[in-house]
Amino acid sequence: MRVPRLFVEQPLGEGQSIEIAAERAHYLRNVLRLRTGASVDLFNGRSGEWRATMAGIDRRRITLEIGAQRRPQADESGPVLLFAPIRRNRLEWMLEKAVELGVHALVPVVTEHAVVELGRPDRLRARLIEAAEQCGRLTVPEIGQVVSLEDVIERHAELVVADERRDGQPLLAALEDRPDSPLLVGPEGGFSDAERRLLADAGARFTTLGPLVLRAETAALFVLAAWRALESDVEDE
Amino acid sequence: MRVPRLFVEQPLGEGQSIEIAAERAHYLRNVLRLRTGASVDLFNGRSGEWRATMAGIDRRRITLEIGAQRRPQADESGPVLLFAPIRRNRLEWMLEKAVELGVHALVPVVTEHAVVELGRPDRLRARLIEAAEQCGRLTVPEIGQVVSLEDVIERHAELVVADERRDGQPLLAALEDRPDSPLLVGPEGGFSDAERRLLADAGARFTTLGPLVLRAETAALFVLAAWRALESDVEDE
Repeated sequence: MRVPRLFVEQPLGEGQSIEIAAERAHYLRNVLRLRTGASVDLFNGRSGEWRATMAGIDRRRITLEIGAQRRPQADESGPVLLFAPIRRNRLEWMLEKAVELGVHALVPVVTEHAVVELGRPDRLRARLIEAAEQCGRLTVPEIGQVVSLEDVIERHAELVVADERRDGQPLLAALEDRPDSPLLVGPEGGFSDAERRLLADAGARFTTLGPLVLRAETAALFVLAAWRALESDVEDE
Repeated sequence: MRVPRLFVEQPLGEGQSIEIAAERAHYLRNVLRLRTGASVDLFNGRSGEWRATMAGIDRRRITLEIGAQRRPQADESGPVLLFAPIRRNRLEWMLEKAVELGVHALVPVVTEHAVVELGRPDRLRARLIEAAEQCGRLTVPEIGQVVSLEDVIERHAELVVADERRDGQPLLAALEDRPDSPLLVGPEGGFSDAERRLLADAGARFTTLGPLVLRAETAALFVLAAWRALESDVEDE
């Protein structure tokens, strides 16, 4: 069986021991049915990945003894995804896929056509952690506070904007021109004309996503997948 | 409000009228709350898209009168996706996204590491239709019968295989080398060594999906997104 990976907030180092409580302990004990002596790989986003052993189990908490480091902390820098909030099940699916595709951070943006409340931050964070554990990442992307489009433009000069219309630049070309730009994906229904003007005046690069109408979460996945594909092609050359 | 799109099996032509029954009628009447005179766009995968008007509504069925053709049938040829069945909710997500990204057809493949039963064909088909209606496609991808890996190799000489390992060809390069190849995505846990040998001997091209462990449905969408991104870049050049 694959050794489970667990994200923890605590410092990690050989010979140390840490305690896991509440849902995480429940998960190891009752879902994965791990017993004393079982292996668990730990990461905290700062110190790489460490192999730990279950040393003590009681009803409330599990004690893990940390052994050798398996992987040093690595650079997992990826794009910042700016997105309009969407309904919860689609949002959580988008978060999971964004983590798997290597997103660095996620920032929800208020737009005229997006009327959806963002879910509970702790729940969204839990989904990001779960995805990072599952896909082997050493970092968990942050999810920022909701910001306005004006804030976004102030902070980010060189946006790449995923656009419903067909008059933008092809996606791969835009990503190659602006390899380190934040990626902004609009809401269902797209940006308003005023928002498009605001973005255009700020020097944002609009990119087209092809002939079909993509759901917001599909557009986000599409843009991140294209970024990852370009990145991997370069890495592996 | 955006005019709803509806896939129908019937022939479509100006001046004709067709009847919608059961869930589709319920959807138009009770979910979208459309009334007599409302517009609905119809497509059947063969004759383009037609604007129709709700002429008659009763408890069991809705009569639509077909007006002018809005779009002629277009070529929506995309890749064939060969995939290992996964759990239902993830499979249905994958189907929806595959439709949005332009998949031509979907074929479930039995692999050693995939132990999941494919869902009910009518339910899967309904999900494909729903996605095609939503994203503006003029065709609904077929979903084939479950086949063996041996069948796949017999039918398709030039596969592109999405691979968990890192020793394959970069994805974009593989897709550019084999632009019309079917795309084969393995199950969670990847292909067995025997399956990899079988595929390699058959001349399949293995492609790497980057540093992270992708869920099966993420791998499928990643490959389709990369294909779509290359396709769009070419179209729009």
